[in-house]
Amino acid sequence: MAESWSFLDAPESNFRPLVVIELAKGTKEETIEWFTKRIVDKKADGGAQLLIKPLVTENGHENIYLVGASHLRLLLGAETVGLVKECNDNSMRTFTYSSRKTFRGFADDNHNFLTMAECQYIIKHELENLRAKSEKMIPGYPQAKLYPGKSIVRRLLTSGILVQIFPLHDREELKKLRHSWYGRVKVGYQPLDDIRCYFGETIALYFGFLEYFTFALIPMAVIGIPYYVFAWEDYDKYVMFATFNLLWSTVILEVWKRICAILTYRWGTLLMKRQFEEPRSGFHGVLGINPVTGREEPVYSSIKRQLRIYLVSLPFVCLCLYFSLYVMMIYFDLEQWALDYHKENESNFSSLMLYVPSIIYAVVIEIMNRIYRYAAEFLTSWENHRLESSYQNHLILKVLVFNFLNCFASLFYIAFVLFDMKLLRQSLATLLITSQILNQFAESLLPYWLQKRHNKRMKKRLSSQKTDTDMSLADQVNMEKEMGTYLGTFDDYLELFLQFGYVSLFSCVYPLAAVFAVLNNITEIYSDALKMCRVYKRPFAEPTANIGVWQLAFETMSVISVVTNCMLIGMSPQVDALFPDSKTDLVLTVALVEHLLLAIKFIMAFVIPDKPRDIQMKLAKLEFESLEALKQQQMKLAAESLKE
Amino acid sequence: MAESWSFLDAPESNFRPLVVIELAKGTKEETIEWFTKRIVDKKADGGAQLLIKPLVTENGHENIYLVGASHLRLLLGAETVGLVKECNDNSMRTFTYSSRKTFRGFADDNHNFLTMAECQYIIKHELENLRAKSEKMIPGYPQAKLYPGKSIVRRLLTSGILVQIFPLHDREELKKLRHSWYGRVKVGYQPLDDIRCYFGETIALYFGFLEYFTFALIPMAVIGIPYYVFAWEDYDKYVMFATFNLLWSTVILEVWKRICAILTYRWGTLLMKRQFEEPRSGFHGVLGINPVTGREEPVYSSIKRQLRIYLVSLPFVCLCLYFSLYVMMIYFDLEQWALDYHKENESNFSSLMLYVPSIIYAVVIEIMNRIYRYAAEFLTSWENHRLESSYQNHLILKVLVFNFLNCFASLFYIAFVLFDMKLLRQSLATLLITSQILNQFAESLLPYWLQKRHNKRMKKRLSSQKTDTDMSLADQVNMEKEMGTYLGTFDDYLELFLQFGYVSLFSCVYPLAAVFAVLNNITEIYSDALKMCRVYKRPFAEPTANIGVWQLAFETMSVISVVTNCMLIGMSPQVDALFPDSKTDLVLTVALVEHLLLAIKFIMAFVIPDKPRDIQMKLAKLEFESLEALKQQQMKLAAESLKE
Repeated sequence: MAESWSFLDAPESNFRPLVVIELAKGTKEETIEWFTKRIVDKKADGGAQLLIKPLVTENGHENIYLVGASHLRLLLGAETVGLVKECNDNSMRTFTYSSRKTFRGFADDNHNFLTMAECQYIIKHELENLRAKSEKMIPGYPQAKLYPGKSIVRRLLTSGILVQIFPLHDREELKKLRHSWYGRVKVGYQPLDDIRCYFGETIALYFGFLEYFTFALIPMAVIGIPYYVFAWEDYDKYVMFATFNLLWSTVILEVWKRICAILTYRWGTLLMKRQFEEPRSGFHGVLGINPVTGREEPVYSSIKRQLRIYLVSLPFVCLCLYFSLYVMMIYFDLEQWALDYHKENESNFSSLMLYVPSIIYAVVIEIMNRIYRYAAEFLTSWENHRLESSYQNHLILKVLVFNFLNCFASLFYIAFVLFDMKLLRQSLATLLITSQILNQFAESLLPYWLQKRHNKRMKKRLSSQKTDTDMSLADQVNMEKEMGTYLGTFDDYLELFLQFGYVSLFSCVYPLAAVFAVLNNITEIYSDALKMCRVYKRPFAEPTANIGVWQLAFETMSVISVVTNCMLIGMSPQVDALFPDSKTDLVLTVALVEHLLLAIKFIMAFVIPDKPRDIQMKLAKLEFESLEALKQQQMKLAAESLKE
Repeated sequence: MAESWSFLDAPESNFRPLVVIELAKGTKEETIEWFTKRIVDKKADGGAQLLIKPLVTENGHENIYLVGASHLRLLLGAETVGLVKECNDNSMRTFTYSSRKTFRGFADDNHNFLTMAECQYIIKHELENLRAKSEKMIPGYPQAKLYPGKSIVRRLLTSGILVQIFPLHDREELKKLRHSWYGRVKVGYQPLDDIRCYFGETIALYFGFLEYFTFALIPMAVIGIPYYVFAWEDYDKYVMFATFNLLWSTVILEVWKRICAILTYRWGTLLMKRQFEEPRSGFHGVLGINPVTGREEPVYSSIKRQLRIYLVSLPFVCLCLYFSLYVMMIYFDLEQWALDYHKENESNFSSLMLYVPSIIYAVVIEIMNRIYRYAAEFLTSWENHRLESSYQNHLILKVLVFNFLNCFASLFYIAFVLFDMKLLRQSLATLLITSQILNQFAESLLPYWLQKRHNKRMKKRLSSQKTDTDMSLADQVNMEKEMGTYLGTFDDYLELFLQFGYVSLFSCVYPLAAVFAVLNNITEIYSDALKMCRVYKRPFAEPTANIGVWQLAFETMSVISVVTNCMLIGMSPQVDALFPDSKTDLVLTVALVEHLLLAIKFIMAFVIPDKPRDIQMKLAKLEFESLEALKQQQMKLAAESLKE
């Protein structure tokens, strides 16, 4: 079987393992033979023209394969996926093989022209685009149906033959990255470019946003500290603080767009054309004709999906929201009980007890959020969306609505129904701090500790049997394949989103929230970095040009916070005292101020350009060049036509 | 001189005059010779390769030239400007000469494949893109400087050598269009496709919007009539009416985007790539290097422009706004005087006199708007914007802010300072109706009457001297060159925008406004059509994919109207009576309702897709095809590279 593999044609030294494929134990020989043949087959014959090699360990090979590709193949792949790289003249251009010499750092023997993450992304893309030709099923598995154009890898994954595909870590690079990222205690920026080279743009952009957001919170935190230290309770000071916060939060969100454009321009993803979106792997339906592509593929009626969304998902979400409010009411009973207890037997213990209901509620909120998350994933997957983007949007919407209500409903209730500012402040502080501690623990530290224990055991077992130098790769693969899979930046952004809510929604009653947020985010950077480098498998790089729907979510939150803060200020006794004669005047004034603030917000968002001027110029220059090239081409054609 | 012109090479019958060029009387012979030579020169030699012919009248030729082009030249030009036409398979594609056979209705001898408006647009584009080569000045006019790449026609225009360029009417087509458009009294849609073929997309889209808007107002009008007939004064009915209006106005603006997409998809402009924007003709500066194109061209420091905007334009606009408010105060004095007069000597005459101040004020508003418009144009032009789009945006912003305040300030004052609903209703009605009558008169009927008188005189003079059949063309040109120039759709949209303001801002106190708006718009369609066909020179077609900044303006107005309507309803005595104990509760309730309405508005705007599903599918199909073609091309290249 192995004789036909092309990696044998090339000298062994050329093979650099990039991606690991793990097949299920007991996969039939004919299936393996067919699959590997398709991977190495020439492009012209419908193959992926990659290199593949079984991983040989002391136990024989365990259906684990290493995939690589020749340098030339990777360069052609880079053109296929539309990578944008820097040219010798400092401009960013879409890489094409024919113009390869104009790119900075290109040389025929420079195998570092493409970063390892880019190579892995290319291989993933090529594997996913390996499509069935005339096969009606996967050889050896008649139940795993295929049709012309179906992605083979996706079918193998859904039918369980393919256990996982993951990119290999580069131990040397990772060590360097870890050192510069969190290895030493230092004040300064994260090595975003290195993170991007190693983990890809999506993850680098998350860390960029996290860092930016932390810096942006510092002014709020600095202004908030004296409120705590000097116990300022004057509402005119709170008004100033809240107004500053509201305008500041608008500015930081607008400025982030500009910084994001700078980063993604430098990384090339701002210019990357988006690829045509194929159906997501979980999508199923009866074979039909896709009206867009004209190809035969599964289709699923849009009406059926709408029915599932509106008749099942929507009621379910409403039920969950109701349940969340019910739990909130229990929390208020507990709170009342604690208060009564404190009144009856006043002691240090009883005043500590006052915090217990909030802490319990915070833990319950976290647990409910996590359970709901699974339910939302299941439901959204059951809705059977054709595109990954549509799946993601529905999932994010579901999760955001629930999390927002679950986290903030009690605060809204305390503020606008109970009018209890003291309880609001206490509750806000407890919720914020508890959720931060829980998150850090559950997300990073616990997995890290588990992983470390596991690794130690693995290492002990392996090192005792270590015999030859080649083993180290096998060790590495075996270790990494057991690591957890990083499920994307969703949870991380969600955490930041909720934190932003705690900081901005009620900022005028608890200015210290920003301080806690800053402290949390500093440790968050370290624990997230640890998580990426030590706990999880290396994720595939994913090119992206912005933080997508999260920008909208953060902006919506900042609009809501204008409303809540204005209401809180209006309700304060100090402001109340300014209008002794008429409460109506007070409400009218507050409403007027709110509308003014909202108007300023929208005007600011409109006036601040989304891209800095120099990026705009660079984009305009590229557009001009491509139009100019087109014109030249047309001119030439026209001249020829007119000559005839 | 004429011997070198290429139209002499071709048979005379082939020459179809499309565009008229009028040079100043007494233009030097060498200039004419150079200019016409550049127009007929081959593309390869930097010419436009068009055909040109002097118009010979009985007085000899008066420096008027007719420009045409061969069929082949026009087809190549269609490719250059990126026209999108319908293919044989019903899809819309960018026209290329090499794929010409796949387009619907194409035949080598079918000279109607391109509409006359498209041909004229192509010729205009080619003329404007006729650029100086090594000339340092226009021959014969040393003060008219040129530099390589400068548009010759623009320099000729700015130095006054070229008086005007305009496209010829097609008398036959125009007659047909007039007949189907407004020639007979009928109930039905306008022939939008014919309008588009004759006048281009911008104008057709304006009439499409006018028609759509009129239809959309009908439900409001129908619901508004019983309020007048039965003299309903119950505020619960007004609340219903206002709520309906607010949601309805959101829906119609969203649905318009979809209709606009349908129209412009059919016309091909939705798919048209926008061309690189050249500096506008009035732009001046010192020669420098444009950082985007790398070409030598005039540059003007952005800081200087900002200074002009913020230190001159902004204070001037503020001064105008102040003046407008001052005039408003005089109006209120007048109003008071009329009221006093009516009280003293009550009679039919005195009650008529009550309307006089409003009418005078309405006339003054119209006059101020028009004067301000000239000032705004002058100022914006003086700000020296490089791009036409930036010029337009600054102009529109200036004009909109002033017109909004000028028209509505008095109404806001009456409503929210004087709290006089009766006066508001009366004032609103007078302003609306007076401004509509004035507009119809000043915009269409007066020019039509003037033009008609002028034409009669012209015809009399000409027909007496008519000698040969060729004269009719000369007659036509001479008649058309004296006609006014249509200055674009700006004023027409502005009128609709202000009307929308009258209808929506205070809809809950004057439900009859929609009725007047509908009536006005029906006559507006006819008078605007008359204006386009009979009063003005034919304008050049301008491809456009949407109504641009007006969509935003209308949407902003509908947001403002939510706020004003909620306030009006809250102020009504009937609603007041619902909250007998506490005015504060009333204000809070109104604020709550307002926020809810705004939230619903934004959610609706977000949920309703901007393009209908079938257009989305067609666009996705096109995108898929082009990506697929690219992939095929890359595959071929890759296969070749890997074979080596």
